[in-house]
Amino acid sequence: MVQRHLDPTGPTAGTLPDVLPAYLRAQATEFLRALRAHQEAGGNGGSAARARPAARAEAERSGAADGKDGDEAADAALALRRSARRISGTLHTFRPLLDADWSERIRPELAWLSGTLAREHAYAARLERLVAALNRLSGTAALPGRPRGTAPAVANGTAKGALTVGAAKAGALLDRQLTLARTRAHSAALQALGSARFHAVADGVAVLASEVPLTPAASTADLRPLARAAHERLSAAVTGLPLVTAGSPYNAEALVHGLSPDAAPHPQDAPWHQVRLLLRLYRYARELVEHPDAPVDMRLPAAGEALNRHRDASEAAAAAASAARTPRIAPATAYALGVLHADQRHEVEAARFAFQQCWQEEAVSVL
Amino acid sequence: MVQRHLDPTGPTAGTLPDVLPAYLRAQATEFLRALRAHQEAGGNGGSAARARPAARAEAERSGAADGKDGDEAADAALALRRSARRISGTLHTFRPLLDADWSERIRPELAWLSGTLAREHAYAARLERLVAALNRLSGTAALPGRPRGTAPAVANGTAKGALTVGAAKAGALLDRQLTLARTRAHSAALQALGSARFHAVADGVAVLASEVPLTPAASTADLRPLARAAHERLSAAVTGLPLVTAGSPYNAEALVHGLSPDAAPHPQDAPWHQVRLLLRLYRYARELVEHPDAPVDMRLPAAGEALNRHRDASEAAAAAASAARTPRIAPATAYALGVLHADQRHEVEAARFAFQQCWQEEAVSVL
Repeated sequence: MVQRHLDPTGPTAGTLPDVLPAYLRAQATEFLRALRAHQEAGGNGGSAARARPAARAEAERSGAADGKDGDEAADAALALRRSARRISGTLHTFRPLLDADWSERIRPELAWLSGTLAREHAYAARLERLVAALNRLSGTAALPGRPRGTAPAVANGTAKGALTVGAAKAGALLDRQLTLARTRAHSAALQALGSARFHAVADGVAVLASEVPLTPAASTADLRPLARAAHERLSAAVTGLPLVTAGSPYNAEALVHGLSPDAAPHPQDAPWHQVRLLLRLYRYARELVEHPDAPVDMRLPAAGEALNRHRDASEAAAAAASAARTPRIAPATAYALGVLHADQRHEVEAARFAFQQCWQEEAVSVL
Repeated sequence: MVQRHLDPTGPTAGTLPDVLPAYLRAQATEFLRALRAHQEAGGNGGSAARARPAARAEAERSGAADGKDGDEAADAALALRRSARRISGTLHTFRPLLDADWSERIRPELAWLSGTLAREHAYAARLERLVAALNRLSGTAALPGRPRGTAPAVANGTAKGALTVGAAKAGALLDRQLTLARTRAHSAALQALGSARFHAVADGVAVLASEVPLTPAASTADLRPLARAAHERLSAAVTGLPLVTAGSPYNAEALVHGLSPDAAPHPQDAPWHQVRLLLRLYRYARELVEHPDAPVDMRLPAAGEALNRHRDASEAAAAAASAARTPRIAPATAYALGVLHADQRHEVEAARFAFQQCWQEEAVSVL
């Protein structure tokens, strides 16, 4: 059926817009399924959200690390975010084919939801990345067997003398700060999922699962020009990136301003973050218009991976810099955080290089 | 004349070893000329070496920076080191052709001399490299007009707010420590040049300028097998380097152990330093046996440049780490030194990458 969209000489018109409502219905169904799974896993933020902070943090940390329900809730939250992002992105890319009022109303709400749900995972991943980097920088092997989310050895000070005092203290400080942030994000997510605002979003998605509000024009529309427009926005943004510099290894660009007094995230990262979002939108658009049996192009995911790594390293570097501004830390701790910051900024540079390499081999074939 | 060595069918035997004594005589003459220039520039360490340390440091700093005599003395010291290294390297590579007793006696003395003379310049260059890095990391432009050896803006705290307190304090700390080390190295060099030990070396070189002590075998020897052996020693050492890793950009290898408790220089750097020395020996051997009109192969100097950069960055990183162990420094200073250390370790990695690229394109053609 999708084949017809790719082959302009095939049977036309009437069935073309079927793909759009079918995709949205499938994503909406997935959203509702994930929501049910999340509620069944007990992740609905009732009593836990009202418990005392310290006890709550402990309960949630151990829950996230060990509990089956915790894992299931996390998986369900991930699936919720996945479908929320896809619905929101599709509403954006294929805007002219959808009821404007409805779509303008639900889009920011979906963005709020996926943003809120993403935060807990982001803090956990950031801590994991920074602790892995500290272990690498200390010459200690990574701990592959460690269950995700447990407090790392470096943070507990149990690494048998292999770490300097500075690295161990830096790890402990980052563990404290990012675990606190993660606990708060967890509570905020639970509260969001119990809120009237969320129930309104869920109701909107439930409508979508049965009846997609299309415009009259949608019945005769071709999806490909809109997908192509998404590609053009992506290409234009990539053109603005300093790819010549990024393609020259060890250009040392990412660490420029590494010691500038500005505490805000690096302004040089913003265009890359923007490309990351546009690449994601284009990827979702391709999911819609591409034939399901078409050979998988691994270059698009590889470029996306590089930009995710860019974002993660950028935020990890900022977290290390921010931890270094904690009052009354020891110089050895600050030194370790400085090394860690620079290491993550070089990860940023490495990710840009990787993206440039993907893009150079014509990562994204125009539809 | 040298051509004969490269062409095995050309006129042989009698004139072959002429090249070796001619080269050694030329280097010895250059050594004596540089020594005279150094003495005429007043760099003979008389009263200055006995002055009070603080006044001496100031006098030498301003002298080295601004004084014409200081510049001339530095140039002469550089020329002395150049010829001392070449004589020593040639005695090593062509050992079987030279009187063993004499050559075993003078070689370590030449190494002592060039090592002693190199130290002052190394500290100055290290400070310059670290200050340039601090400026780059702070997003401030380099100061190309700054006379070599003057205290940098960053160290004087006069950079108009563009630097963080941490970067400025780190710069001031490095300036204090490396200027002190440089001053001591300057005094040591002056004392060495006034010592009986040095006069013995100079006498030995004076002998060389008139009469090179060859073995009887030298009169019929071909120099090329010995130069080839130098190339083989170099190749064998390069084979031991992790070139596959080095050739993969952003391998993050150089910063492994960046936070290890060991204060000593990175053990992973040692094989690269060894290759640097072997490359230099081979380069000197080529100076001897190559036809003077032969096209200059720029790849050998490029590989040497990369290894010099490797050594400089390695030592600068160690200096930043060492400064961070100064008692009672502010956390912001320690943080800046951590960033600086990691930056220089990435320079180490970048230099290895550059060397790998040079070597890959068959940098060194066998003679």
